[in-house]
Amino acid sequence: MMNRREFLGAGALAGGLLAATALNAHAASGGRNKLRVGIIGVGARGQNHLALLLRRDDVELTAICDIEPIWIQRALARIAKAGKPKPKVYGADGDVHAYRQMLAKQKLDAVFIVTPWEWHAPMAIDAMRAKVAVGCEVVAGITLEDHWDVLRTQQATGTPYMLLENVCYRRDVMAVLQMVRAGLFGELEHLQAGYQHDLRGVKLNSGNPDGGIGVEFGPKAWSEARWRTEHSAKRNGDLYPSHGIGPCAMYIDINRGNRFTRLNSFASKARGLNDYILAHGGKDNPNAQVKFALGDLVTTQLACANGETILLQHDTSLPRPYSLGFRVQGTHGLWMDVNQSIYIEGTSKTDDAWEPAQPYLDKHDHPLWKRFADQAVGAGHGGMDFFVVHAFIEALKAGAPMPIDIYDAVTWSAITPLSEQSIRQGFQTVDFPDFTAGQWQQRKPIFAFDDRY
Amino acid sequence: MMNRREFLGAGALAGGLLAATALNAHAASGGRNKLRVGIIGVGARGQNHLALLLRRDDVELTAICDIEPIWIQRALARIAKAGKPKPKVYGADGDVHAYRQMLAKQKLDAVFIVTPWEWHAPMAIDAMRAKVAVGCEVVAGITLEDHWDVLRTQQATGTPYMLLENVCYRRDVMAVLQMVRAGLFGELEHLQAGYQHDLRGVKLNSGNPDGGIGVEFGPKAWSEARWRTEHSAKRNGDLYPSHGIGPCAMYIDINRGNRFTRLNSFASKARGLNDYILAHGGKDNPNAQVKFALGDLVTTQLACANGETILLQHDTSLPRPYSLGFRVQGTHGLWMDVNQSIYIEGTSKTDDAWEPAQPYLDKHDHPLWKRFADQAVGAGHGGMDFFVVHAFIEALKAGAPMPIDIYDAVTWSAITPLSEQSIRQGFQTVDFPDFTAGQWQQRKPIFAFDDRY
Repeated sequence: MMNRREFLGAGALAGGLLAATALNAHAASGGRNKLRVGIIGVGARGQNHLALLLRRDDVELTAICDIEPIWIQRALARIAKAGKPKPKVYGADGDVHAYRQMLAKQKLDAVFIVTPWEWHAPMAIDAMRAKVAVGCEVVAGITLEDHWDVLRTQQATGTPYMLLENVCYRRDVMAVLQMVRAGLFGELEHLQAGYQHDLRGVKLNSGNPDGGIGVEFGPKAWSEARWRTEHSAKRNGDLYPSHGIGPCAMYIDINRGNRFTRLNSFASKARGLNDYILAHGGKDNPNAQVKFALGDLVTTQLACANGETILLQHDTSLPRPYSLGFRVQGTHGLWMDVNQSIYIEGTSKTDDAWEPAQPYLDKHDHPLWKRFADQAVGAGHGGMDFFVVHAFIEALKAGAPMPIDIYDAVTWSAITPLSEQSIRQGFQTVDFPDFTAGQWQQRKPIFAFDDRY
Repeated sequence: MMNRREFLGAGALAGGLLAATALNAHAASGGRNKLRVGIIGVGARGQNHLALLLRRDDVELTAICDIEPIWIQRALARIAKAGKPKPKVYGADGDVHAYRQMLAKQKLDAVFIVTPWEWHAPMAIDAMRAKVAVGCEVVAGITLEDHWDVLRTQQATGTPYMLLENVCYRRDVMAVLQMVRAGLFGELEHLQAGYQHDLRGVKLNSGNPDGGIGVEFGPKAWSEARWRTEHSAKRNGDLYPSHGIGPCAMYIDINRGNRFTRLNSFASKARGLNDYILAHGGKDNPNAQVKFALGDLVTTQLACANGETILLQHDTSLPRPYSLGFRVQGTHGLWMDVNQSIYIEGTSKTDDAWEPAQPYLDKHDHPLWKRFADQAVGAGHGGMDFFVVHAFIEALKAGAPMPIDIYDAVTWSAITPLSEQSIRQGFQTVDFPDFTAGQWQQRKPIFAFDDRY
């Protein structure tokens, strides 16, 4: 194994070949102790990031932008309660392009993009052109062309872009990364993950900002149901791949010695959302007539240049316990999170019998979690949200490459339009584009090799 | 739901339209109390069936056939110990076609085919032509054409043919069948299963009939390693689909109201068998140079006419705990066997939280298990082997349709050549042939609706 310095050196070199990693105009090369940060979108998810930024001394929250007055009020109240200066507010007039004013006027070092998916690509492109570093919530774009546009803009401008994929920082996921790098699983052969999360109550609600079961989506709904559900109505594919594929990609060095070569998706019928509408709105509710395009189960396979296979499952419209369904399997054994178990030949006490994974996870706890677990407590999603924000800010301050970079972002997120294409073509297998234009063969891993970020 | 009599009536009618279900010359229509039975292949698996047949008063074990003297001796010893008459022995001279003499001379009602996979199709065809009912171990043939040949012979001769797929009779699998039929899962949408079983010690051994770790396969090896490993060396596909697909097919009425429409397989690299040979035979062992074609993980998807998706995993060359990996998911919830858990919306105590499956499995215990659990104790594979032999014999005696019939057999087994084709074509999706020629739309389910068999 390379040591940390060799990895970082190699990574920086490779990054330099592919795209300038120079910081933007404001966060000059290294040595900056405080960053001017803005947030576009302070809705349900944006409030999480806001709370984490307010806890940091190295962040000056200069501006926020949202077109929903309720969320702006909640954000300002949160900021005041934290004793931080009131930021400049954009978008209160309802102008969906108000963020451009913010980018133009606020001399930001970085911006968090936490808006509906369809806005991620245009906002990221505008921000990169304005030399404002982008921390983008998961989903880099909608169409395949969006992904190429975001990539080309990053390459042309050299502005840092990080995908805020929090599950890469989940404690067990990071411990397993340590185990993978220590060779515990041998040579990796097969990975599984996905997004299996009953979102019926997210996709459909009463429209009341204070909550309540309902069957509205679109303009009459509240929060994510205003925009997210439309994707279930119109699109059939793995709409949310990054929480699953991010950790898998890190385990097998995708874009850094490996790449996805082919993709295939199968989709089941769609029943879950209609059943929910019938149950809670009745058959006379206008939404009971909606035909949702999204299959309730979308199952995707990926082949990799180094011979691994990956299985992703998208399951968001049916009643079920939450599970990202990780499985990491190599020549020496495997870990699965659904049964919280592991088997490692020669190490596990009984041949061919599962043992609890927790002692292994404890033993291989990642240095980042050892150092920051106390600070992470209370951050969203079991603490992992702390780390993704931390990584973005710290890497920017250090003038270092983004730990989850533009290639990771577009590669992971492009699974959605590619899976749509596969399903549309009758579950046919499609080629996976090489966003690195061959540089994956030279690029070296840089993600989470120490306890800094 | 139809009641039992309606189901059986409808099934018999549909069966009659498709293929004569008349019994062979010896087991005349119904009312036979004792069947003349032969076994072709009394190796490791054949000895299991032999033991079960010896426990039955309705079976006269008339003949056995094998070309391996050790297995013949073990079979005769077992028969003598059971106090049963010595059967006629065929094949002791090493003639691989000795079974034809047995079929011609022994006036058998039924024959068990328990031989290497490549012999199943030709032996079944010969038996059906001789009007001897076939109980065939899993794998109906090798090539797709084999499957058509077996089917066409059954249709032309009307001789009963049953695939001896034991996992359809596993206690939890049958309880889940009851739950499916009771509507507990709502409308089924997605199923998972497979064959995940570390077979390295089966595919490679010392060649000593008394056991011992080794790295031989082919003529120098013992038992299954003599022939089964060659399939791993030459073929890349899901080589053993029926244990997984059998129960799934029964849950969603494949060939009886539903059918498979498309198939896709991805295969990982192949490392497991070579690693095992290196570890136990060293790099200078001639077998260390063998290039095995079979990917260690072969993952297959199937689409169904009624909109369900099925995921099958074949994983037989790596260290791992045994698991068939069942998942049965519908609009109301899901069961998974890897974590022995279930979730049913509205029934499970806590929203979106797993609960132990066992109380559900106990509550929905199948009538067959309630009636025969005591007799099944001691039978192979947790008792399920009792039921598959029982079903074959009882259905023959009753002159009734085979509960796992020729259409089930060829449909499940054809997954292997189709998955090979998919992988060979670069993981492309292939159409699934309709072996029923459209009759799947009229045929009705008949499997395990009561406590008889």
